[in-house]
Amino acid sequence: MNELKGACLLAQSGGPTSVINASLYGAVKAALADGRITRVLGAAHGVKGILDDVLWDLGKEDPEELSYLPNTPSSILGSCRYKLADPAKDDKDYRRILEIFQKYDIRYFFYIGGNDSMDTCDKVSRFMANSGWDCRVMGIPKTIDNDLNGTDHCPGFASAAKFIATSCMEMSRDAGVYDYPTATVVEIMGRNAGWLAGSAALATLQGDGPDLVYLPEVPFDLQAFYKRAGEILERKGNLFVAVSEGIRDKNGVFLSEYASRGAEGKDAFGHVQLGGLAAWMANELKKTFGIKTRGVELSLLQRCGAHLASRRDIDEAMEAGKRAVEAALAGENGKMAAYTREIVDGKAVTGYALAPLTEAANFEKKVPVEWILPDGAGVTQEFVDYVLPLIQGDCGRATVDGLPRFTKLKQIRA
Amino acid sequence: MNELKGACLLAQSGGPTSVINASLYGAVKAALADGRITRVLGAAHGVKGILDDVLWDLGKEDPEELSYLPNTPSSILGSCRYKLADPAKDDKDYRRILEIFQKYDIRYFFYIGGNDSMDTCDKVSRFMANSGWDCRVMGIPKTIDNDLNGTDHCPGFASAAKFIATSCMEMSRDAGVYDYPTATVVEIMGRNAGWLAGSAALATLQGDGPDLVYLPEVPFDLQAFYKRAGEILERKGNLFVAVSEGIRDKNGVFLSEYASRGAEGKDAFGHVQLGGLAAWMANELKKTFGIKTRGVELSLLQRCGAHLASRRDIDEAMEAGKRAVEAALAGENGKMAAYTREIVDGKAVTGYALAPLTEAANFEKKVPVEWILPDGAGVTQEFVDYVLPLIQGDCGRATVDGLPRFTKLKQIRA
Repeated sequence: MNELKGACLLAQSGGPTSVINASLYGAVKAALADGRITRVLGAAHGVKGILDDVLWDLGKEDPEELSYLPNTPSSILGSCRYKLADPAKDDKDYRRILEIFQKYDIRYFFYIGGNDSMDTCDKVSRFMANSGWDCRVMGIPKTIDNDLNGTDHCPGFASAAKFIATSCMEMSRDAGVYDYPTATVVEIMGRNAGWLAGSAALATLQGDGPDLVYLPEVPFDLQAFYKRAGEILERKGNLFVAVSEGIRDKNGVFLSEYASRGAEGKDAFGHVQLGGLAAWMANELKKTFGIKTRGVELSLLQRCGAHLASRRDIDEAMEAGKRAVEAALAGENGKMAAYTREIVDGKAVTGYALAPLTEAANFEKKVPVEWILPDGAGVTQEFVDYVLPLIQGDCGRATVDGLPRFTKLKQIRA
Repeated sequence: MNELKGACLLAQSGGPTSVINASLYGAVKAALADGRITRVLGAAHGVKGILDDVLWDLGKEDPEELSYLPNTPSSILGSCRYKLADPAKDDKDYRRILEIFQKYDIRYFFYIGGNDSMDTCDKVSRFMANSGWDCRVMGIPKTIDNDLNGTDHCPGFASAAKFIATSCMEMSRDAGVYDYPTATVVEIMGRNAGWLAGSAALATLQGDGPDLVYLPEVPFDLQAFYKRAGEILERKGNLFVAVSEGIRDKNGVFLSEYASRGAEGKDAFGHVQLGGLAAWMANELKKTFGIKTRGVELSLLQRCGAHLASRRDIDEAMEAGKRAVEAALAGENGKMAAYTREIVDGKAVTGYALAPLTEAANFEKKVPVEWILPDGAGVTQEFVDYVLPLIQGDCGRATVDGLPRFTKLKQIRA
């Protein structure tokens, strides 16, 4: 029987999702319910809040207010993009984290995030073990990109996929409404993995969706695209295209880079900023075919559209949070809560497991190339069969005056 | 007792909304139920379908399939932007319309659309009267812009407003999630009227919404905006701005024109194309404050996001369609189905009336300047009190496999 007593610390990191707070809620509830956990703390803005000693006492929050967390999008504790150094080279941050862990007697640490966060988690876990501070460090996955290794799928992905598929069905009706030829290009998040872009194809299941869907896993050929576009315009009079923000040509050059060439499109580090791809492609189609076109970037909406979250995603995210806490209490350390896919009575249901953090960290799981159509402009039935079960169920959100009811924290300092 | 017997023709025009098919459904049901109406026809792509003699027999559609219309976005019959000439100068199109009316014995004509469509309706009504063809012509309003005269509000507006307010609440959570300063600019439709942009302020009711909201009714001062932006960034670390696509400076120049200057931003008629304003403003904020910024254009989503439609809007739209048919059957002609605002037990409820088409046509109803804050960066409580009752109720849509169930027409030619 594990008798490690002490405080528990939770933090969120990376890009928000619609259900990252559902994971937090599952973990907080499990932690508050267990006598071995003396306090339940949350770090402001991920690991930055630990370094800056900005911790909130989540046990002092109103339980009813917390109950709205599963339907509250974005990271309620705040997020960061801070990357810890390699501790072999510079362990200053790790020593500071240990200091904070000791100050608050933190014996359980849960980090909710994507690849980078799992890497942070792994490094903190090892540092604590080496330093002799008895502490359990667990990762709880989160990413709309669905690119984490070691888990069948990621909390947050299905809700974004549902937003994308639903929006594409709706826009498809709008995009083809006029009696003159038009083309609409929708740009979808996912720089290296096409799970989200491919999900636009779910719209086509019901007969309303993109004619062409391009994922970043295979090279994008602009001339082949124009040829297909022309054929479709000829046949049906309008064209609806879904593209990943990360599509690249055969030389590996981002198409979005074409879009920002000659403009002030580079960020502070000289990187070309993604975005603007849909507008650029729409303009190219306009020039090529002399028709009315429109570029639509789903932008933030796809990752924060909690009103369209999948119930299954919410429930699984809560369960992942709960299981991470339970596993830590049972003595586990250095693991990530993970999903498995089980087939029960012919239906795909989610099982729960633990994956080593090392397996999840620093590896991007992409869409298998055999799930992408040979012409590179769509996905196979296997892809659809993988995603469709995950987007089921209404979010069941609370509203006030027709608008969402989100959690507001009192943010009482620990 | 009106004994005019014959076919009824319905058509849709202008930009689609989430509930334009609800109006169609209300009208079709009422028409199918009345013995005086011999056939219920729909014109493909508005008045263009009449000119081209492409009419569908809606009575031959499956009633269950039609029942999904109230939750099916966009114009199921197709739309057009075709503007009829002044019949005093060129009556060719009108003579063609008369020919089609005679061919199908059309005695009832209902046009669902915005300002231009009401104008078309008015002209057709007068031409038929002058030509001696006994026919009742009625308008059914539709526009997300809410700019039609003669009605308290317009079908389609509330659903778009609800999408905007909900999305702004969600994005507001996402926009402020990081520990470094950021600015997010959301661009909202409405070239001349700020009803939609102002609706972003509903998000702020619940504590999550834009810091600044700019409508096209008052001049936009870029320097004053930078000053406010700087103050807000200083105070709370991040900034969230909602702007109408139609904001203009004190000389009447569209800010979106600044955005497209030097680029290929002009359309076939030499007009500057709207769009890209959010991206431009985000880039200007980035240059001015040296912070990370993001521009988000709600684009098509705001007018086709039927999954977030207001139940009240859907019900009212159906009722407007039904009442237009009933009024025509009772002998009315040349009118538009209109809404009134009645206060019952202190609550705003919608009453129904008829407005002369001439009143609705060719006039844009703008937000009263006294409903805009003196600094031009928000709206008053009166504005909120006007919009909030309209966005109430869940759309109650049907889904299949977690995705919307839309109407598919068989499109059987009349």
